[in-house]
Amino acid sequence: MTGTAPERIRVHYRSAPVAGSSPAARAREIAIEQTAEVPASCIPAALEGPVVGIVESAEADGPDWRAVVSYDVRVAGGELPQLLTVLYGNVSLQIGVRIERVDWPAELVASFGGPRLGPDGLRRACGVAERRPLVCAALKPMGLDPEELARRASRFAAGGADLVKDDHGLADQEWAPFEARVARSAAAVAEANARSGGSCRYVPNVTAPASALARRMRAAREAGCDLVLLSPLVVGLDTLHAVARDEGVGVLAHPALAGAFFGPGHGIAPEVLLGDLFRIAGADAVIYPNAGGRFPFDEAACVSLHRALRRPLGGVLPSMPALGGGVDARRVGHWIDVYGSDTMFLVGGSLYEASDPESATAELASVVRGRTATNDP
Amino acid sequence: MTGTAPERIRVHYRSAPVAGSSPAARAREIAIEQTAEVPASCIPAALEGPVVGIVESAEADGPDWRAVVSYDVRVAGGELPQLLTVLYGNVSLQIGVRIERVDWPAELVASFGGPRLGPDGLRRACGVAERRPLVCAALKPMGLDPEELARRASRFAAGGADLVKDDHGLADQEWAPFEARVARSAAAVAEANARSGGSCRYVPNVTAPASALARRMRAAREAGCDLVLLSPLVVGLDTLHAVARDEGVGVLAHPALAGAFFGPGHGIAPEVLLGDLFRIAGADAVIYPNAGGRFPFDEAACVSLHRALRRPLGGVLPSMPALGGGVDARRVGHWIDVYGSDTMFLVGGSLYEASDPESATAELASVVRGRTATNDP
Repeated sequence: MTGTAPERIRVHYRSAPVAGSSPAARAREIAIEQTAEVPASCIPAALEGPVVGIVESAEADGPDWRAVVSYDVRVAGGELPQLLTVLYGNVSLQIGVRIERVDWPAELVASFGGPRLGPDGLRRACGVAERRPLVCAALKPMGLDPEELARRASRFAAGGADLVKDDHGLADQEWAPFEARVARSAAAVAEANARSGGSCRYVPNVTAPASALARRMRAAREAGCDLVLLSPLVVGLDTLHAVARDEGVGVLAHPALAGAFFGPGHGIAPEVLLGDLFRIAGADAVIYPNAGGRFPFDEAACVSLHRALRRPLGGVLPSMPALGGGVDARRVGHWIDVYGSDTMFLVGGSLYEASDPESATAELASVVRGRTATNDP
Repeated sequence: MTGTAPERIRVHYRSAPVAGSSPAARAREIAIEQTAEVPASCIPAALEGPVVGIVESAEADGPDWRAVVSYDVRVAGGELPQLLTVLYGNVSLQIGVRIERVDWPAELVASFGGPRLGPDGLRRACGVAERRPLVCAALKPMGLDPEELARRASRFAAGGADLVKDDHGLADQEWAPFEARVARSAAAVAEANARSGGSCRYVPNVTAPASALARRMRAAREAGCDLVLLSPLVVGLDTLHAVARDEGVGVLAHPALAGAFFGPGHGIAPEVLLGDLFRIAGADAVIYPNAGGRFPFDEAACVSLHRALRRPLGGVLPSMPALGGGVDARRVGHWIDVYGSDTMFLVGGSLYEASDPESATAELASVVRGRTATNDP
């Protein structure tokens, strides 16, 4: 903290109007609901300010109401679970309350640490010297055995993918148990690297029950993996933080379940949930659906999230935006023009559809290798 | 599994209509998205059925489309994180896809174990011999010191509350660090019990970062606590499972963040998320907002969730519905008529507003003690 006054987390809420209430009254309700959670008459005066949220502003804006409510950083107690609780825990259960933006105290962000690698570190991990986008292929579908998954991994690595990640649905199913599958895929990518002189990284999905995570991390490290895939909303945002901080690996964060928060009038804006919170918790790359794929994210939303992940934030590293969800390999050149070189492209189906996935990967890799920071938007 | 065919998880999805598509095509997209996640032409034939979701039915229903998609239980790999992923991971990112109901294979439910105590076990833990509702008071607001919180706990216990729980926002903040606060509150409740001959249980909030949870559980047990409060969506549903299964305590599950899933046309129905999933993961009581309080749950929704928590489900125990969010102590008699005796009433603000919280608790306790199963609806 700087000076004597503790820093405050300023949360920009949008609220549906409430009959018989006013923007200021609604904002005060939110401020109390998220902190003291008792009737206003029962709040000891000494707790107003240091504990109860403060309404910084509140006004009608077209059909909606807007409010900025600030919380003393000490309310979050330095912990991500409590931070989530104070931002959105109880008001999630009301109708039409959306977090549109958060102004974060730099000290709070820095205390969580953010990404360990970020875009530059991910490039280094993949042996990429120039500042260019990364290509990540995806191992799937579930149901294949470890041999076939490893064969596919080998082909993508030989074709020149920078990373080959597990599909987020590959867990520990009987068709390809975690340890066997990860050992085989890692070995296949290492062999392809040895043949090609490349540095492709295999990225296993370690999303797992709490009791199994440590074992899977150990198996992943023993297989030589220094990057992993995790779905933070499935296992808890703090689990991402623990892996990023304590396990000495880089983390690609998958948005599974995140869409539940992306209602137009309720939830948490993607720029806050995936952009700020995933990054603060330590995601080196944040996966989200690109425009024009299978998911209804438009280009403006994708660009906005891309910016959020790289904006200055408490001195922590940027996260690398990782665009997936149906990226067409043939259009990657176009998307580089849109997003620039700090971008990872997850290409799955479109490589599988090619008659020869290895050559299709090689073609894609050659597009990406021709694009460096000099032509960034 | 019974017989040779593995059981299937049947998920009832509602979908917004998609221009140029059909209910059957949309259902097939969901079935693929949640499993194979490759274009249909790239799915090896051998994986249709055992791996790819099967469209059991699909039809238009008024302005919406409905589909039942079934998944082989093996897709979930016996793990809650992957179960969440297959149910709703990627389709959460699409527009207007809601899980309305799930038909669960009994073996899958039983494999997770469900509640350890359920309503009867919770009553036993609180020393309640007759089959009647339980009264739970809430310790708050955050910002008070351990002494003041303990004083409040003592008064509620002396008044005859069956349980005194931490507010879900009490974590490890500097005003009342976890270990000091839990030790003091537990001791205060134990002393009140010794004076009154009662068995009130103090229920600390153990929602915590992954790295701190074990330490807090140990401190809670050392303080004599055998029930804890946890927010499963804040720390991951599997963390609830791990605590319920491995820590030898009963768990009250708090719905913080759950409302993000409760959009009318998108998300997961409360009966599935709080009713089935929290229960399967081991919640002995599931907290949710009562009708007529600060949250917009109506009576029909509350009754429906109350039923879901107690319906026959794979042979596991029921969870105890725990109604909070602004329950007026003076109306508890009415709510007992509505819900019956397998109900926990969380009463917070309305006790704090009383001029004498201890007598207000005593009054409430006397209402509840007069109502046993004989007058159940």
